[in-house]
Amino acid sequence: MPITANNPNRKTWIKTPTNTDFPIQNIPFGVFLTRDDVITIGTRIGDTAIDLGALHQLGYFDEIPLTDDIFLQDSLNDFISDGKKTWRLVRNRIAEIFDTENDTLKTNKEHCKIVLFTLDEIEMQLPVTVGDYTDFYSSIEHATNVGTMFRDPDNALLPNWLHIPVGYHGRSSSIIPSGIPVHRPQGQKLINGTDKPIFGPSRLVDFELEMAFITTDANHLGEPIPIDEAEDYIFGLVLFNDWSARDIQKWEYVPLGPFLAKNFASSISPWIVTLDALEPYRVAGPKPLKEQLPYLQYKGDKSFDINLEVAIQPEKAKETIVSKSNFKHMYWNMSQQLAHHTINGCPVNSGDMMGSGTISGPTPDSYGSMLELSWRGEKPVPLKDGGSRKFIEDNDTVIMRGHCEKGGVRIGFGEVSTKLLPVFKK
Amino acid sequence: MPITANNPNRKTWIKTPTNTDFPIQNIPFGVFLTRDDVITIGTRIGDTAIDLGALHQLGYFDEIPLTDDIFLQDSLNDFISDGKKTWRLVRNRIAEIFDTENDTLKTNKEHCKIVLFTLDEIEMQLPVTVGDYTDFYSSIEHATNVGTMFRDPDNALLPNWLHIPVGYHGRSSSIIPSGIPVHRPQGQKLINGTDKPIFGPSRLVDFELEMAFITTDANHLGEPIPIDEAEDYIFGLVLFNDWSARDIQKWEYVPLGPFLAKNFASSISPWIVTLDALEPYRVAGPKPLKEQLPYLQYKGDKSFDINLEVAIQPEKAKETIVSKSNFKHMYWNMSQQLAHHTINGCPVNSGDMMGSGTISGPTPDSYGSMLELSWRGEKPVPLKDGGSRKFIEDNDTVIMRGHCEKGGVRIGFGEVSTKLLPVFKK
Repeated sequence: MPITANNPNRKTWIKTPTNTDFPIQNIPFGVFLTRDDVITIGTRIGDTAIDLGALHQLGYFDEIPLTDDIFLQDSLNDFISDGKKTWRLVRNRIAEIFDTENDTLKTNKEHCKIVLFTLDEIEMQLPVTVGDYTDFYSSIEHATNVGTMFRDPDNALLPNWLHIPVGYHGRSSSIIPSGIPVHRPQGQKLINGTDKPIFGPSRLVDFELEMAFITTDANHLGEPIPIDEAEDYIFGLVLFNDWSARDIQKWEYVPLGPFLAKNFASSISPWIVTLDALEPYRVAGPKPLKEQLPYLQYKGDKSFDINLEVAIQPEKAKETIVSKSNFKHMYWNMSQQLAHHTINGCPVNSGDMMGSGTISGPTPDSYGSMLELSWRGEKPVPLKDGGSRKFIEDNDTVIMRGHCEKGGVRIGFGEVSTKLLPVFKK
Repeated sequence: MPITANNPNRKTWIKTPTNTDFPIQNIPFGVFLTRDDVITIGTRIGDTAIDLGALHQLGYFDEIPLTDDIFLQDSLNDFISDGKKTWRLVRNRIAEIFDTENDTLKTNKEHCKIVLFTLDEIEMQLPVTVGDYTDFYSSIEHATNVGTMFRDPDNALLPNWLHIPVGYHGRSSSIIPSGIPVHRPQGQKLINGTDKPIFGPSRLVDFELEMAFITTDANHLGEPIPIDEAEDYIFGLVLFNDWSARDIQKWEYVPLGPFLAKNFASSISPWIVTLDALEPYRVAGPKPLKEQLPYLQYKGDKSFDINLEVAIQPEKAKETIVSKSNFKHMYWNMSQQLAHHTINGCPVNSGDMMGSGTISGPTPDSYGSMLELSWRGEKPVPLKDGGSRKFIEDNDTVIMRGHCEKGGVRIGFGEVSTKLLPVFKK
């Protein structure tokens, strides 16, 4: 089925700012609370939010086989379970409804009043109930930087790294949407040269610039997903800030991996941009440096050219962009990640989230964490207001943005913006 | 509120086999499919399953504030969200209904027909929808054995182990109830002396004898749970078999921990035995070998004396008990685990599951995994039928059982029994 929603020449009757992340070619999915305190599934064109629950009740999706309440839910999980064919039908239909050539809704003032919202009339929620969250470690630049700093510059990559899309399980319960502030975590830390840990606030709170993809129900217990089918089970992507406390991490992570250093919060952008919308931005991935096992070998372009940036905004000051990276730098792509995750028969469900791992680029201004940007704190990162940062300070806001651009069409993710509050006090 | 359900002198009008795990003092909670293909929440006395959904509809819980459909659900999550006071009221009331002194239900043949089932009329389901699953590593004997085998016998415990109840995140989607078979997983393995991994079936499939506790909604993002409140948020426990593929684990687990080696399956016993029911079996835990940070220090007895055993049953042969251990061996108790898990503000929700880690005892016949019992395969474990096992073979069934016993009352968990099938073929 053609993705007519992606037609680059289509224009919409909704007023859209120039250079918006959300032209009519995007049509992302999210969940929001409306001015009437109703929770609904919606989409966005320009700065207009669209209530898909209301649109469906008014009959605008009558030709698509959908249950009546599919959009009147507090998560996208059931819609995602409907599968790729349905997602495509719905996106194509939304593009039609808002096309300049179509004045059915446009001229129905009453319907418009029910269906359309300005952004300040809504409150974005978590778009899915995350069943399981997995974080990969798929940027070779990030893995090399970390290995250089903490192990051996001559053997920065561990022996398994070029063979396995290394990943580990994270915590679903602390995944939060953009806008929800996070408290500086407390925990155990070992001061260098001592052998007894102390307790207190983390002094090395960091962001990790990541993207995460969201899956549909993919397989049953025991069944692997072949790599050439993996993309059929990917609904879309969000920006992902994998908050990290480096001092807690260093003391706790051997031998079972990071735990409290990560599970205090992970922030995501609230609009899921579909894999279909990203179709025009496919690019070839990096050439494998070592031969990969057959279950990880793929055909065609499985990487995506998505520009990413991170800004730090101290309280009452202007933001400084501290990193510019790109999703295409990932050594292991999403198809490889999903094929690997299921090769042992691990079941993947609707609403599961899989993070890329920190997306560092090849140059020092493209590193995806303060750990790398400030090189363990040795090179403080200058800010516009005159200060500098080794790590994130109380009341700083960290903002991540991402967009693709080609042939005059820009598809973006909006942003994930999160303020770091001081330690929680009862 | 007193836990009258625990009265050791109470007798029931339900016929119960001698030495049952489920006397009227137990009253565990589970979810089952009835002979009429209805899913309901229930309990069990002796070999009789009791439909709590039907019992509630018939008015037997009218004096307890419960929503009408609280037991007519496919998981216990909402009931668990109701909190400890409600769990206690319901258990106390169930004890009353089935007390020999009470003939209201007993003499109502019609009600009995609706409410009571024999075990072969029902099919046990997963008792909760697991949001997040965490696995700890809290047995000092297990951690010492693993450290001795794979690192250094003189420094078997890692430096953080006596300070931190080490834990990591596991996969919720592959948690399955007793009775569901598991396929031998495939994956990458590195043959000793080579530097290129090969792909194939795991040759070292193992069980891990664990218990897991299930929580209620405990805290909000940012808020730690104080250790002396931790038990208020623990609903109950199950037996937990944390299936492991040792060859896959060895190649993948540095630096981010086990992933595909574990997430192909974890099996649980289907009846959740409440923490209330275990109250009479509290015992003091092991003395700390090093001083613990204040947030991990507790008062009173927080360990529980639960006898555990593991049996291997080859196809068409008798089972052999290969290990006898006890939950009281855990160096870190559940209160410490939950206080640690949330000290950074990580939110814990209803239905979350936390595994103890392999529960090995001090003697070689009390080790909780084949890795330890066969000492990496060096000492095959003899079976009754004449064979022996280094690890688990295709078509073997692994059975774990657990019970407490004191003053003539036995409270048990039933069993978790899982057959290992050959590699999945499409």
